[in-house]
Formats: sequence, C-alpha cells, structure tokens
Amino acid sequence: MAQFMDVHHGMKGITPDQLRAAHNADLAIEGEERVHFQRAWADPESGVVYCLSEAPSAEAVQRIHERAGHKADEVHPVPLSI
Amino acid sequence: MAQFMDVHHGMKGITPDQLRAAHNADLAIEGEERVHFQRAWADPESGVVYCLSEAPSAEAVQRIHERAGHKADEVHPVPLSI
Repeated sequence: MAQFMDVHHGMKGITPDQLRAAHNADLAIEGEERVHFQRAWADPESGVVYCLSEAPSAEAVQRIHERAGHKADEVHPVPLSI
Repeated sequence: MAQFMDVHHGMKGITPDQLRAAHNADLAIEGEERVHFQRAWADPESGVVYCLSEAPSAEAVQRIHERAGHKADEVHPVPLSI
C-alpha cells in the first residue's frame, strides 16, 4: 500500500460537521477500493482541504472521493514521509 | 497554538535524505518562533512537499522555513482536522 495526499479547493466556509460528514462518506465505501482515509485538514477561509490516505493507487483514492460526492483537485503519491 | 499545512513546489527528485535534512534544519531553529514541525510528506515525481506544523501564526512557520533555506509556496491554517 502507498500513501497519498489529495487536495480539494473551493471548500470555503466548510464547517467541522461538514468535514466530518465528508470524511464519513469516504469511510463508508473506502473498503471497496482498499483505500483508507487516515486524516483530513481543512482551512474554511481559503477553502482548501487536504486528505491523507493509504491506497493501492491514486485512481482508487479518486474513485472513492468521486463516489462520495467530492472529487479531489489533485492526488499525489507521497512515498516519502517523516 | 494553531495548526498549519504548508506546501512547497519544485522539489522534484527530492530524496529521503534530503527530506530528512530539510526537516532537521527546521527542527534546529523552530523553537525560536515557538513553531513545531510535526510531519512532512513528499512526492519526488511532482516535486510537492507538504509540512504539518503547530505554530502561533503562518508568518512564524514561514520565517522558520525561510531561515532554513526552503521558503514555502503556501502556508494555510488548518483549524479543522480529523
């Protein structure tokens, strides 16, 4: 499994409840693609959201996000981490 | 203390040793601004690096990164996280 960071733009004004609901929508179906969303961080002011996941591919990450209703603008493998 | 995600572009080909050295350069001086860099993730192929930190302000995060020789392209407060 590889690690991925994906980025969503345009989420200005996102609330804690909305972030939690979006994350839960991913968790509900992620197993179908062997993806696991581990963390998410949001800046309601600029509207950017970052999600950290483990997955077999960037495409699998994107498929879960799309089906959950929030396609990512970027999905990057992050093979290096500290 | 608030949490921040910052992004560096143009780091194509970054190696594990280079990521570690950059992170250590931050850690060596971060206390002077009451910043703490917690995690970092890198994609050597696209050249993007993400750093997660706790800090009193985005400016403090940027000052440490600049003094360590790697100014961030974006620094976002991420008051929401999961």
